[in-house]
Amino acid sequence: MSQSFQPIDASAVPRFAGLPTFMRLPHVTDPAEVDIALFGVPWDAGTTNRAGARHGPREIRNQSSFLRAVHHVSRIAPYELCRVADLGDAPVNPFDLQDSLAKITGFVESVVAAGGLPLAAGGDHLCSLPILRAVARDRPVGLVHFDAHSDTNDSYFGDNRYTHGTPFRRAVEEGLVDPKRTIQIGIRGSIYGAEDMAFAEGSGMRVVYIEEYFMLGTEKVVEEIRRVAGDGPTYVSFDVDGLDPAFAPGTGTPEIGGYGTHEAQVMLRGLQGLDLVGGDVVEVAPPFDPSGNTALVGATLMFEILCVLADTFARRQ
Amino acid sequence: MSQSFQPIDASAVPRFAGLPTFMRLPHVTDPAEVDIALFGVPWDAGTTNRAGARHGPREIRNQSSFLRAVHHVSRIAPYELCRVADLGDAPVNPFDLQDSLAKITGFVESVVAAGGLPLAAGGDHLCSLPILRAVARDRPVGLVHFDAHSDTNDSYFGDNRYTHGTPFRRAVEEGLVDPKRTIQIGIRGSIYGAEDMAFAEGSGMRVVYIEEYFMLGTEKVVEEIRRVAGDGPTYVSFDVDGLDPAFAPGTGTPEIGGYGTHEAQVMLRGLQGLDLVGGDVVEVAPPFDPSGNTALVGATLMFEILCVLADTFARRQ
Amino acid sequence: MSQSFQPIDASAVPRFAGLPTFMRLPHVTDPAEVDIALFGVPWDAGTTNRAGARHGPREIRNQSSFLRAVHHVSRIAPYELCRVADLGDAPVNPFDLQDSLAKITGFVESVVAAGGLPLAAGGDHLCSLPILRAVARDRPVGLVHFDAHSDTNDSYFGDNRYTHGTPFRRAVEEGLVDPKRTIQIGIRGSIYGAEDMAFAEGSGMRVVYIEEYFMLGTEKVVEEIRRVAGDGPTYVSFDVDGLDPAFAPGTGTPEIGGYGTHEAQVMLRGLQGLDLVGGDVVEVAPPFDPSGNTALVGATLMFEILCVLADTFARRQ
Amino acid sequence: MSQSFQPIDASAVPRFAGLPTFMRLPHVTDPAEVDIALFGVPWDAGTTNRAGARHGPREIRNQSSFLRAVHHVSRIAPYELCRVADLGDAPVNPFDLQDSLAKITGFVESVVAAGGLPLAAGGDHLCSLPILRAVARDRPVGLVHFDAHSDTNDSYFGDNRYTHGTPFRRAVEEGLVDPKRTIQIGIRGSIYGAEDMAFAEGSGMRVVYIEEYFMLGTEKVVEEIRRVAGDGPTYVSFDVDGLDPAFAPGTGTPEIGGYGTHEAQVMLRGLQGLDLVGGDVVEVAPPFDPSGNTALVGATLMFEILCVLADTFARRQ
Amino acid sequence: MSQSFQPIDASAVPRFAGLPTFMRLPHVTDPAEVDIALFGVPWDAGTTNRAGARHGPREIRNQSSFLRAVHHVSRIAPYELCRVADLGDAPVNPFDLQDSLAKITGFVESVVAAGGLPLAAGGDHLCSLPILRAVARDRPVGLVHFDAHSDTNDSYFGDNRYTHGTPFRRAVEEGLVDPKRTIQIGIRGSIYGAEDMAFAEGSGMRVVYIEEYFMLGTEKVVEEIRRVAGDGPTYVSFDVDGLDPAFAPGTGTPEIGGYGTHEAQVMLRGLQGLDLVGGDVVEVAPPFDPSGNTALVGATLMFEILCVLADTFARRQ
Amino acid sequence: MSQSFQPIDASAVPRFAGLPTFMRLPHVTDPAEVDIALFGVPWDAGTTNRAGARHGPREIRNQSSFLRAVHHVSRIAPYELCRVADLGDAPVNPFDLQDSLAKITGFVESVVAAGGLPLAAGGDHLCSLPILRAVARDRPVGLVHFDAHSDTNDSYFGDNRYTHGTPFRRAVEEGLVDPKRTIQIGIRGSIYGAEDMAFAEGSGMRVVYIEEYFMLGTEKVVEEIRRVAGDGPTYVSFDVDGLDPAFAPGTGTPEIGGYGTHEAQVMLRGLQGLDLVGGDVVEVAPPFDPSGNTALVGATLMFEILCVLADTFARRQ
Repeated sequence: MSQSFQPIDASAVPRFAGLPTFMRLPHVTDPAEVDIALFGVPWDAGTTNRAGARHGPREIRNQSSFLRAVHHVSRIAPYELCRVADLGDAPVNPFDLQDSLAKITGFVESVVAAGGLPLAAGGDHLCSLPILRAVARDRPVGLVHFDAHSDTNDSYFGDNRYTHGTPFRRAVEEGLVDPKRTIQIGIRGSIYGAEDMAFAEGSGMRVVYIEEYFMLGTEKVVEEIRRVAGDGPTYVSFDVDGLDPAFAPGTGTPEIGGYGTHEAQVMLRGLQGLDLVGGDVVEVAPPFDPSGNTALVGATLMFEILCVLADTFARRQ
Repeated sequence: MSQSFQPIDASAVPRFAGLPTFMRLPHVTDPAEVDIALFGVPWDAGTTNRAGARHGPREIRNQSSFLRAVHHVSRIAPYELCRVADLGDAPVNPFDLQDSLAKITGFVESVVAAGGLPLAAGGDHLCSLPILRAVARDRPVGLVHFDAHSDTNDSYFGDNRYTHGTPFRRAVEEGLVDPKRTIQIGIRGSIYGAEDMAFAEGSGMRVVYIEEYFMLGTEKVVEEIRRVAGDGPTYVSFDVDGLDPAFAPGTGTPEIGGYGTHEAQVMLRGLQGLDLVGGDVVEVAPPFDPSGNTALVGATLMFEILCVLADTFARRQ
Repeated sequence: MSQSFQPIDASAVPRFAGLPTFMRLPHVTDPAEVDIALFGVPWDAGTTNRAGARHGPREIRNQSSFLRAVHHVSRIAPYELCRVADLGDAPVNPFDLQDSLAKITGFVESVVAAGGLPLAAGGDHLCSLPILRAVARDRPVGLVHFDAHSDTNDSYFGDNRYTHGTPFRRAVEEGLVDPKRTIQIGIRGSIYGAEDMAFAEGSGMRVVYIEEYFMLGTEKVVEEIRRVAGDGPTYVSFDVDGLDPAFAPGTGTPEIGGYGTHEAQVMLRGLQGLDLVGGDVVEVAPPFDPSGNTALVGATLMFEILCVLADTFARRQ
Repeated sequence: MSQSFQPIDASAVPRFAGLPTFMRLPHVTDPAEVDIALFGVPWDAGTTNRAGARHGPREIRNQSSFLRAVHHVSRIAPYELCRVADLGDAPVNPFDLQDSLAKITGFVESVVAAGGLPLAAGGDHLCSLPILRAVARDRPVGLVHFDAHSDTNDSYFGDNRYTHGTPFRRAVEEGLVDPKRTIQIGIRGSIYGAEDMAFAEGSGMRVVYIEEYFMLGTEKVVEEIRRVAGDGPTYVSFDVDGLDPAFAPGTGTPEIGGYGTHEAQVMLRGLQGLDLVGGDVVEVAPPFDPSGNTALVGATLMFEILCVLADTFARRQ
Repeated sequence: MSQSFQPIDASAVPRFAGLPTFMRLPHVTDPAEVDIALFGVPWDAGTTNRAGARHGPREIRNQSSFLRAVHHVSRIAPYELCRVADLGDAPVNPFDLQDSLAKITGFVESVVAAGGLPLAAGGDHLCSLPILRAVARDRPVGLVHFDAHSDTNDSYFGDNRYTHGTPFRRAVEEGLVDPKRTIQIGIRGSIYGAEDMAFAEGSGMRVVYIEEYFMLGTEKVVEEIRRVAGDGPTYVSFDVDGLDPAFAPGTGTPEIGGYGTHEAQVMLRGLQGLDLVGGDVVEVAPPFDPSGNTALVGATLMFEILCVLADTFARRQ
Repeated sequence: MSQSFQPIDASAVPRFAGLPTFMRLPHVTDPAEVDIALFGVPWDAGTTNRAGARHGPREIRNQSSFLRAVHHVSRIAPYELCRVADLGDAPVNPFDLQDSLAKITGFVESVVAAGGLPLAAGGDHLCSLPILRAVARDRPVGLVHFDAHSDTNDSYFGDNRYTHGTPFRRAVEEGLVDPKRTIQIGIRGSIYGAEDMAFAEGSGMRVVYIEEYFMLGTEKVVEEIRRVAGDGPTYVSFDVDGLDPAFAPGTGTPEIGGYGTHEAQVMLRGLQGLDLVGGDVVEVAPPFDPSGNTALVGATLMFEILCVLADTFARRQ
């Protein structure tokens, strides 16, 4: 892999210096040059409550300067295994939701067409839908979904069917996600009514409510993730509100009582060996994140996903 | 005016106690009971950059607890002159811009139909358009417009013609605002190009750029406001980014180099005697306002406008 | 329960819209109309160090807009079981501690007299005393007390016996609380001296120090809570400083090394089936809470208590 | 003046190092050793709205490390002219207002008895009353009072006559302040009613409302201050809410539309030559001051007052 | 100028999207491609008190997304007049001050050698020295210096002669700056001693203390700037602490009582027509800037300087 | 121990009052008067990324006012066992790293020479090196090191061998620390390369990576600490970034996925009985700590270490 991109050397150039690209990698504009495409989706038009995730990609990039080159547990060295770069932000249209969905899908299609794996920094959770439309174009994929919310509602504010509370219902309806190969981890919080989870559970998704999560323990949940996802192509989506807001306060719909970052890291590392086709980290909302820690969490979880994606990529070669 | 509403007595109930209504006035739901209707428009779907003004009404209400009952300069006692109350928030639909415009207009129409004067807390500046559709239904009104931006652009992100950068162009096109009786005060900041101000100036608006403002001095600007507005019905719209961001940092599109709060107060007091038909204070964005001062500014400027509206109302009786 | 109050529908009116009442419930002023009375006590005159809890009720109300209608674990739907509303704030006098105590007791007595169960948002922990004077007027009650501090000191700054460090000593002395049916969970932090816990332990309170808490595990602590409280009438008081300050930094007397929110939720859910007579969540101090998370924690824990109170109420009918 | 105290040398010990005493001066406990006593009054029990000024002395001390030794305009070198030191904080009792008043007076009396001039960092504005009881024990003094509020109300929350809204009415009633030699500068903000200023104006105080202030200009206001204060003994009291909250957001009762810091400095420098007997800077409330700038303002204004006090002291020798 | 670079079009790509380069311009690495080189100096090793300016370039870039393409007063369109781009950050060595100075000078020399004009975002004020070493290599330049401090001290903490308090003394000693063609505007704040300004005044610099600034008025100060700078090559250096901290709190050494942003803009615009050779905006310290406004001020003042530099460049062709 | 120093009595003087010394103890300047010397090292010149730890000692002192006199678990009463006081800050030179190292060592030597045990509040982690040079002058000591990072790198930015990433490599090389008696707890985070840990592991240090930490559980890690440290003289160094940033966001190099404060407290209590020779708590960076919680954590962990040091001291007598 002689042409692989390398992060700026932090022992030569201080971490606070230079343009804040993801992981201090080069900014590349041609998808054909990369195997794993890091990109932002600066868009929160799907938000039903507090906006701000539109600023997520910039601040995640900023905090990602803290990351180094090699995973300290798995020893995966992603920049040795494949070509990873910052592809910039997907195009969006703040005033036209459907146009934005189309533009994001188009952007990701260019990555997929070039043989690359997409790894996005949201944006709100509606971002996952247009990405899935690109990566699951040819067949449904499994879904490993970390979140406090199922995001399988039907509509909001009348008949608005495309919000950050509905992406995975749409994805199932559109045949992008196989609900039988879908697992949701960390679901919790007061609900509108008894039927809230009817679609998720009715369609066959494996829902690990936070109570079951704590009862099983992280290790067993990892086993369950691997069992559900199986051998097929699988997408991973991490909503930072799956974490307890002590760890990730800067998000639009915080729910107390979640897991911590160590647990999240263990679960993401547990994806190694699955047939991963892409991923995202969403709902980092910097205006509600006075310490900047939520964006650091977002950046670090992106690195965790990047490592298992790189491992997937390398094994495929 | 025996039935007028009174704020909670702060020498009996501390200012930090109780539900935060505007000015600690009663929450009233029937427009027929009020002469001046204070209400919020929790909506920022017109925002082209940083959102957050959707949270403006709540935080302005919260800070409005600082306000007392009588204006210390004009000695106007609005709650003695007419019935003023908090009508709650106008209905909005975060996912449907046109539906929101219609709903806001409907809400304000109910106020106008009952003979009341509307005074809104935004929300982003697109809010002014649906309010004007209600108050200027029968004839164009004059406009006293405090802002760093002219908000007379044509469209954004393709052909999106309804944003917080376009309301007053739409209002002129729709015959709601008489550009000859319109004055904009504080316009400044880098521009897209030489033609940015073509519509405003071409349509006959009187544009007081910040440089002219400082050259003339506040007193002469007040004279100019009164000259332009004249005797006809007039609406007042205050975008807090007209102020320097030192005074109002919590806003979506700050531009350095504006006027201060004292100057703003003097200009608003200078409206006394005009034939006012309503007003708004917009673009308070609490997520960018760590000290809360911007919302306090918003609340106090609402009180300034309230006093001149009450005086208008009383003189009409 | 045809007349029960319902929260504003968040799929019709966005969560950031409208007046921030507790849980977006109606504001009701007649205690006779409610079965469970949510109210604030905007008062921190009992504070010995950092004030700010006076602002707690407003910010808890604000953040409580995040809450939905049904408990996702117990499936308790409080608004179906009984009439729940926001009764506003108890009257207080910032300059007269004894007068405040009397006024708060009077307010709660009106709730109790009407057959309602009080659920308060403090205010500092001294608030619990006047509430207990109302709910325990006829017989002592058991107490489930979550806190980092025992709050059973005798006096401060000379002979001041009514502070947020003394309420439960006073409550025992006044016969309001049965120390044998009292359990304190999470006690920790450096102490003034060996005798600090003499009253609590000498009077027969069951003190679960944080070390024992972690040793036993949450499940066993729940059993111990139920054992101590028994079948008699029981009050629940949650001081947010029982939580680790990572979860609740916005409080007056933070002590590191506490439990998390999930654990707190599990313990509160464990109260289901007890004979509950009321409760409070206290010591949320918004000026020390830059992210707003502490108020969200306070609001969510109020919802947890509300659910078990509603279940108690329904079982009694 | 061989024994005078000197600040820590900032070119040897960095400003962020060391215990934060006022102006980095020695902490001295014997009033007999100092000519000008800097001290804190960590007390806000007189506050009717937002507390926090109790934390003022610590944060003013912290920010006062920015100050150097010589005034750059008047060239007054206070530490060359007299012995200036940090006497620590006056004793207070958070639970007993009258006891606190007595303790503060006692503390200041020890300074006065030793021939020293007191210069206090509040604390809320009620602090001025017990200080005046010490410095004006023998005869009424003139008062130069910078503030947005007259602080001459009669009572709050029933018959509570000692609050931060009443000190100067009490001071006149007690014969401590000569209203004919009193000037208030910057008064503004909505009022409770037409009679709010009756006491101030009726007693003969010269009230420079903010409108008159801006009309006259700072220079003429200085002349007016000197005319009113005259030759007699005079006390200076600076409430930071006299400043516009853009300059001093961290205060309990902000009122928009005030003067700036440069103007405040010019006015304080204008006191040189008066027969000053002491002063205070009050109402710095750090919990509402995210940038710390308000405390820096407080510290710098203390230095301005210190210089004119030192000049007074030196001229008397 | 067919090859000139253009900012990203904000009506197509939202301002919060994309990598945050200065003014949303392309990132270019070859100095030969640009006429005006925008770059950062992420370095605060010269700071004697609060560090943080090392983070200035990133946050100024972030906030510079607010800027548009054309100056609204002078109508200068810099991107039409010459090639402007973001050259990234100058190399620095946080652990070796002299090495950093050499590296920064080398970086700027490459710009100058290619015929470009440098415009830097600091970093602390010591940054100006290595830049001057490059732009004034062949002959001394005049200096227009906005600041609260003269920065002409000799040494700190022993014999450390290279700090942010000494750059212009060094620059004069090294023959880089002609003190007779140097003007400092806004000098203020307590001083170490009477001799603090001896070098500045003794060397012939024109020092406009803040008091004289307010007395003369901005217009006359502009005349004085032009008179002092004259026709020779001139460098402009803007320390944001020249502004009042109400306008720019996020800086290392704030001094209350400065000018505002409008005044700063007027003065910078007044430089049009001078023979400018480069400039900088320094001492933006984001960790002390909770609202982000200081970085916005820094970005906007950079745009002001950019416009007069572009005008200079165009006139030279 | 009749002459021991006592903290200010918080039931007489409120915690927010008075000069903020460590634990509200007297400020003492003669090392001969103390058995355990609390002191600050206001210095972060070893920082490779975000500075700010220079402000740590002040803010830790400020927050340490929360601490009381007796440990609630071990019942150690340090102020009864020995003479503990605040010795102020070690001298530092922000512009000369080697001079600072020498000065800090000199300061600590004076403590050690007087028979005292040093307990420092940093400052960045490079502080530990000069302290070790004093306490380990005569023989190497064991090291119990809590941290996310091993801090055994060789150099940064060229050949800079003294940074906060290198102190323990230098300490081993200088014979100050016995790597065989060294244990590092909590190591984690992405790494530069496979060889990052070569020195630590190659020299014989016991590295408890965070993964092993969570697998073993705190109790077993305590056993391992005691086994490794053994009977010899041992130093304890606590970098707050060993904690998860949810608990300690205000630090220069946060790494998600760490332990919590309760676990840290249990581990520090587990040191009781070791032959302790001193300790430090480092890397508290207040500019990145909006809630102040990190400094409270720092202060409380200092108290934990103080208790085991006092116990060590008492047992030696």
